[in-house]
Amino acid sequence: MTIHHVPSYAVDPVKLDRLAELAIRVGLQFQPGQDLVVSSPISATPLVRRIAVHAYKAGASVVTSIYSDDEITLARFDHGHEQSFDHAADWLYEGIAKACSNNAARLIIFGDNPTLLSNQDPAKVARSAKANATAALPARENIMNSRVNWSVVAYPDLGWARKVFPTVSDDIAVKMLADEIFAASRVDRDDAIGAWKLHNAILKERTNWLNGQAFRDLHFVGPGTDLTVGLADGHNWIGGAAIAGNGVTYNPNIPTEEVFTTPHARRVSGYVRSTKPLSFQGALIDEISVSFEEGRIVHAKAAKGNDVLHKILDIDEGARRLGEVALVPDSSMISKSGVLFYNTLFDENASSHIALGQSFSHCFVDGRCLTPEEIKQRGGNSSLIHVDWMIGSGDVDVDGLTADGRSIPVFRKGEWAYGP
Amino acid sequence: MTIHHVPSYAVDPVKLDRLAELAIRVGLQFQPGQDLVVSSPISATPLVRRIAVHAYKAGASVVTSIYSDDEITLARFDHGHEQSFDHAADWLYEGIAKACSNNAARLIIFGDNPTLLSNQDPAKVARSAKANATAALPARENIMNSRVNWSVVAYPDLGWARKVFPTVSDDIAVKMLADEIFAASRVDRDDAIGAWKLHNAILKERTNWLNGQAFRDLHFVGPGTDLTVGLADGHNWIGGAAIAGNGVTYNPNIPTEEVFTTPHARRVSGYVRSTKPLSFQGALIDEISVSFEEGRIVHAKAAKGNDVLHKILDIDEGARRLGEVALVPDSSMISKSGVLFYNTLFDENASSHIALGQSFSHCFVDGRCLTPEEIKQRGGNSSLIHVDWMIGSGDVDVDGLTADGRSIPVFRKGEWAYGP
Repeated sequence: MTIHHVPSYAVDPVKLDRLAELAIRVGLQFQPGQDLVVSSPISATPLVRRIAVHAYKAGASVVTSIYSDDEITLARFDHGHEQSFDHAADWLYEGIAKACSNNAARLIIFGDNPTLLSNQDPAKVARSAKANATAALPARENIMNSRVNWSVVAYPDLGWARKVFPTVSDDIAVKMLADEIFAASRVDRDDAIGAWKLHNAILKERTNWLNGQAFRDLHFVGPGTDLTVGLADGHNWIGGAAIAGNGVTYNPNIPTEEVFTTPHARRVSGYVRSTKPLSFQGALIDEISVSFEEGRIVHAKAAKGNDVLHKILDIDEGARRLGEVALVPDSSMISKSGVLFYNTLFDENASSHIALGQSFSHCFVDGRCLTPEEIKQRGGNSSLIHVDWMIGSGDVDVDGLTADGRSIPVFRKGEWAYGP
Repeated sequence: MTIHHVPSYAVDPVKLDRLAELAIRVGLQFQPGQDLVVSSPISATPLVRRIAVHAYKAGASVVTSIYSDDEITLARFDHGHEQSFDHAADWLYEGIAKACSNNAARLIIFGDNPTLLSNQDPAKVARSAKANATAALPARENIMNSRVNWSVVAYPDLGWARKVFPTVSDDIAVKMLADEIFAASRVDRDDAIGAWKLHNAILKERTNWLNGQAFRDLHFVGPGTDLTVGLADGHNWIGGAAIAGNGVTYNPNIPTEEVFTTPHARRVSGYVRSTKPLSFQGALIDEISVSFEEGRIVHAKAAKGNDVLHKILDIDEGARRLGEVALVPDSSMISKSGVLFYNTLFDENASSHIALGQSFSHCFVDGRCLTPEEIKQRGGNSSLIHVDWMIGSGDVDVDGLTADGRSIPVFRKGEWAYGP
């Protein structure tokens, strides 16, 4: 056996292996004969190696891992020539899209340092983000439309751990972040796979109730917030396990606590204040306040990262409209941890949230059969981006408004206001 | 700055940075606005990071690094299902080929553990090698035909260092291999770039003399060897710097000591014995003896790795014929080091050698304008593989045979037998 690098900090190998197995068996429900394409920060090689073991045990044809490296990203910002920032590795994203169109499963490992680019020129950050988003479109299409089984899991990268736990030593920060990831992903218990079965069943009950109500709008009220979010015509609430276009039942996010659907891109009005900071491509945006008119953001301000926020909103027309609305109780496991992760995969599961940009085509009844034009007519948004930000807290109430004018409590003080 | 892994052994950072700069400025002669695609073992991240810095300084658009990982390769052999071994990541190779067809420069970092697969089932090793070679064809095409500037440099991977220096501790083995790589690559001196200018000039004199002679055949005589290698019609000797199809003068191999050309695939006869072991896709082959008739290997035997040798020869018809012949004096810097590297990039530069399989189209006068059919008519070989093995030593003489029947000494006792 070759040991290339010996990290000075240790992540519990039993739980790490359990997370790898969960990613393959529950996240992807990996099918024999599939290829697997993993995208990962280079720090997460210990997890990628265990994932490869479980993928090959499950009958993988070829496991390929594509690594990002913070130091190479920074080398570009430190030394790159001016014209470099409008370019991206199109050929790589096209290749990944091609693999998925040949039924490869797709696993993404999150571990990005949320402040990596916070000292860089915001114009260059925005330009490289746009170039990447444009290049990634064909690969992202497979995920946004769930053509194949895909999933996201997290790894405790040192840069990320330092941001989340800034006052402790590196070793302890990584260990603490690892423990939070393991708990939120339910691999801190022996029967992680059984725990996910139960969790999926509870989320399914929530979406069944919401779909039965068929609300016309959701109305959010809280400090700095009075927002009416119209829901798309024929919208469908989704949570936990889903069925991909290739027929596989998979769990796209590990962890996940949310139920979510598609808002109507032209029927959002009022104002809303963020309840947690948003980390976007390495830059931090905090204390966001925006106003909507007829679905469009007409005024936006952030106490921190205001420049980056406006760069996001200006990426394209769809970046000013909503592509997702999601409900998460304030008592969710991740919210209870009290940890601010500076990472959407976790923070969006601590709080109800909305997303700017692209909508999910599968958040419609019969979504897979709709043309892009039909999705647009029903209120679905389209954009290069999909950026979630948090608007829920223990102070926020949510009502469902029906087509016949009734108002039905959905959340009170951040908690579900109905059974089961 | 994020430190993901702290290796327990240290490679001299000054010389490592010099090697990275040499790869960009001499190996690739990297041009502003080019993309760079690096293939590397994951252990070589310290070198890849310095390469990214020098590439961005030189005006790179995007630097993308694709990593191989010995542990993931082994996970497949340990856990992969039977049908897995005939598959490869076609989409990734196609993507790399596409990048190069858009003028991306291509850098390959060698550091493979030469014995990684030596305990694995030779049939599976051969099947996965064939699947990889087939998938890699479009990407390899750009290199074999030098459409873009490309180069190969080496990194002292621990698994490789353990094989080369098995009797010392890991730290010392890596340090010793690093020193050998740095010396052979001429970055042990301050003016590495100047040293490469002089070296390229000397190699150019050798190829000029050989091309002036226009030999019909080379005749190798030594212990176990009496081999006549016909040279292809209109062959061209090449060494050191070359000009790529995109017009860039580059150094494809760092290190390099050889001058080489294309043999005639149907005019090789006699017998030859290898003088060093050959490491092929992780398996070791040693003490090879083969006989040729009309260019084709009709008898082959290896004291070690005989199975793998025969699997190679059976990959396709071209695998039994020669695609390269190269001359290296026994006094070359790498030969003088006395180190057996178990790696072709180094060992082929310690010894005259021949290669089974695919020929280089640029080893013809006006090679770039020849059709595949014309190359074949002139004696150029084609195959999925290109496998070099060493046949030179201080006991081997080489004569050049001219079309009018003269015999001119080229090597005596492993050394050049003429000026300059």
